Amino acid sequence: MVDHMKNDSEGPMTACNHYGVLGQRQSSLVTKTVREAPAEEDSINASLLLRAGFIRKHMAGTYSFLPLGMRVLMKIEQIIREEMNAIGAQEILMPALQPADPWQRTGRWDKMDDILFKLTGAGERELTLGPTHEEIVTPLIGGFIGSHRDLPVLVFQIQTKFRNEPRAKSGLLRGREFRMKDMYSFHASEADLDGYYETAQAAYANVFRRCGLGAITCLTYASGGAFSKYSHEYQTLAATGEDTIFLCEPCNMAINKEIAADLGGACPACGNKALREERAIEVGNIFKLMTRFSEAFGLSFQDEDGRRQDQVYMGCYGIGSSRLIGAIVETSHDAGGIIWPRTVAPYEAHLVSLARTPEERGKADEIYARLQESGIEVLYDDRDKVSPGAKFADSDLIGIPFRLIAGARSLKENKIELKNRRTGETHLIPLETLIAGYRQIAHG
Amino acid sequence: MVDHMKNDSEGPMTACNHYGVLGQRQSSLVTKTVREAPAEEDSINASLLLRAGFIRKHMAGTYSFLPLGMRVLMKIEQIIREEMNAIGAQEILMPALQPADPWQRTGRWDKMDDILFKLTGAGERELTLGPTHEEIVTPLIGGFIGSHRDLPVLVFQIQTKFRNEPRAKSGLLRGREFRMKDMYSFHASEADLDGYYETAQAAYANVFRRCGLGAITCLTYASGGAFSKYSHEYQTLAATGEDTIFLCEPCNMAINKEIAADLGGACPACGNKALREERAIEVGNIFKLMTRFSEAFGLSFQDEDGRRQDQVYMGCYGIGSSRLIGAIVETSHDAGGIIWPRTVAPYEAHLVSLARTPEERGKADEIYARLQESGIEVLYDDRDKVSPGAKFADSDLIGIPFRLIAGARSLKENKIELKNRRTGETHLIPLETLIAGYRQIAHG
Repeated sequence: MVDHMKNDSEGPMTACNHYGVLGQRQSSLVTKTVREAPAEEDSINASLLLRAGFIRKHMAGTYSFLPLGMRVLMKIEQIIREEMNAIGAQEILMPALQPADPWQRTGRWDKMDDILFKLTGAGERELTLGPTHEEIVTPLIGGFIGSHRDLPVLVFQIQTKFRNEPRAKSGLLRGREFRMKDMYSFHASEADLDGYYETAQAAYANVFRRCGLGAITCLTYASGGAFSKYSHEYQTLAATGEDTIFLCEPCNMAINKEIAADLGGACPACGNKALREERAIEVGNIFKLMTRFSEAFGLSFQDEDGRRQDQVYMGCYGIGSSRLIGAIVETSHDAGGIIWPRTVAPYEAHLVSLARTPEERGKADEIYARLQESGIEVLYDDRDKVSPGAKFADSDLIGIPFRLIAGARSLKENKIELKNRRTGETHLIPLETLIAGYRQIAHG
Repeated sequence: MVDHMKNDSEGPMTACNHYGVLGQRQSSLVTKTVREAPAEEDSINASLLLRAGFIRKHMAGTYSFLPLGMRVLMKIEQIIREEMNAIGAQEILMPALQPADPWQRTGRWDKMDDILFKLTGAGERELTLGPTHEEIVTPLIGGFIGSHRDLPVLVFQIQTKFRNEPRAKSGLLRGREFRMKDMYSFHASEADLDGYYETAQAAYANVFRRCGLGAITCLTYASGGAFSKYSHEYQTLAATGEDTIFLCEPCNMAINKEIAADLGGACPACGNKALREERAIEVGNIFKLMTRFSEAFGLSFQDEDGRRQDQVYMGCYGIGSSRLIGAIVETSHDAGGIIWPRTVAPYEAHLVSLARTPEERGKADEIYARLQESGIEVLYDDRDKVSPGAKFADSDLIGIPFRLIAGARSLKENKIELKNRRTGETHLIPLETLIAGYRQIAHG
């Protein structure tokens, strides 16, 4: 009935993937870079991300993700999604709006009062905005557990979370509204929880590695609260980090400040006392909740012998996806700007045209088309009236990993210069073999 | 440093796409079907979606999307994303938490008081949860508009929205927390807005067609408020719809009840007065905001002659992505359950195993593996101890478009039965040519 159709295929007309279009002309990119960040921005990540046009601040701890930032966020969240799916977790989406009752039942309505946003909805109903979802997921999943055959249950969501931080700060590292993946697991025995907890550690290692943080992110022992001996944090080493950890180099593990005294400053894995103090950013945490929440909501199941069992063991597993963006920028930048790992860069190539004649412009346009046809995501700086110096400065600031410079001299020789943002290395690629040459260098 | 790696490739180990794993064994699917929906559910969509395990209700108007429902939601939102990208719109994500100030500036803090959730954050700051984002997007984009060369600006987001509905009802059709795509356009002239408004109509037609609603969704004239003559709604014809529209069959357009009297009951496109009254569900709306918000926030730009212009013309374009799920179920079901269009089905094939011997089970497992290897998304009913009748009833309820029945008799003949959920048509496909045979029938 709607007869304004432009195409009859199942897909759209423009070349795009799940993150948006493959190619974006910078002349029509919504954002522009700015020379200086607002004076109140105290952190490297907020300053660089604001200047480069990835985010904008609305209130303390509340940001918009702009087109470049949105692509980074979507790529990080897709990496997380894939790794959670790979360990059998099924994706769901629970509401941010939560009634007070389940929070009162677990005692956290009062206990977490300092960081819960509270509000009143229609019908004078007391509500909160979820900073976490144990109070929702536990009764929800409880409704699907009848027998031991229904366990384990593994679910996760990728969602906007809310936390009424008294002092929101450090850009994307500590927000009032932020993006997070939270996974919850439900098990028939402690042994089964233990096994899955290890599986989740492997998946977490994959996530941080694929986001380019593998080499500087370490599993860190933290307090287990009232019910477990330890919980674990993932801490990314960063001079600007707000946490202090003690690193055991032989184990590639650390202990956090809270439990350092309890442990006598020794690594719980090997006993080593020669730990190195480091600053770090917490990018994830995993926690054996044991029966803390399943008991509060009366979960139970029938075991193999037909007996009712009321011990359901739970684990929870968080990663701050927007905080990861902040951690990457804090640890991967130089004086010129951001340096994105290829896997999470908004575009993998930045085609910078220095064309001055219609002929040169035509060649640059053709390169842009060929890159997209080959599935290479490319930002194309096609702007007139911007000097080469300003274009290079913008390109450094935005931080796309591979820069293709379409300059008059190399175009004349039917070549293009490829520059690696991180190493500064340059290569001349013949246009004849542009795609193969690009791939060989960029994808190594 | 994190050394629990399981693989060194860039992707995960399990076959999955952007929506999750390609194959899901029903024995480990988190959800189970239930025979009856809770008595308080008054709508077909909530009743079927709850029974089939796609959603669960937490409070009136507040639902979780469970694994099957989450996949449908992601597919619908990806179709919307692709179509918005195809008309040049760039994806962003603005905060749900919004300060009171911009709402006070536009006068909507009081005017929309009945549906705004209001709360107080740290520092005694008055906040609201966005049901829409004009108050945020207008000053945000205003910061990037300097010259006529920066226009038009086209941005959209896909986000969770909040609306303090006094009477949340009708399942996913009228929620307090719901998913929505909202796009905003900014133009240097009314003519440019008019042109883009038509382009957006074409994209909307594509969205509804790709979601399987094209044939029953019509562009509907609605009140334009104080600043425009008309706005437009997209209305999906449904006996259970809460809106009344008057359909002009020759034009494939309609007028809504609000403006019917003003128009003398005539089609604004052709003047036809023989309109047919229909019930319908509003699934989208588009609106020329003109300068209503750009003036409130003082947007301006420099024109081609270097003069300051303070008339920035805006349009806004909404689609309720979670409401679309409700609209699809209301209009595409039978006595047995839901009938999903292939493009938004949680899985495209439902492999139902009736195997009773290890040999038969092995054959069914092999079919499951082959479907996934070919990139076909498949839910595999591998459950033991569930009767064929119960499996078929579940399969009807869940509504996956193509059912492959691995029964003893056909397996013995090295064949499998394919049944179309909508038409009931069945075909026998030789296992030798399973994939080609399946594709020929399913993808036509």
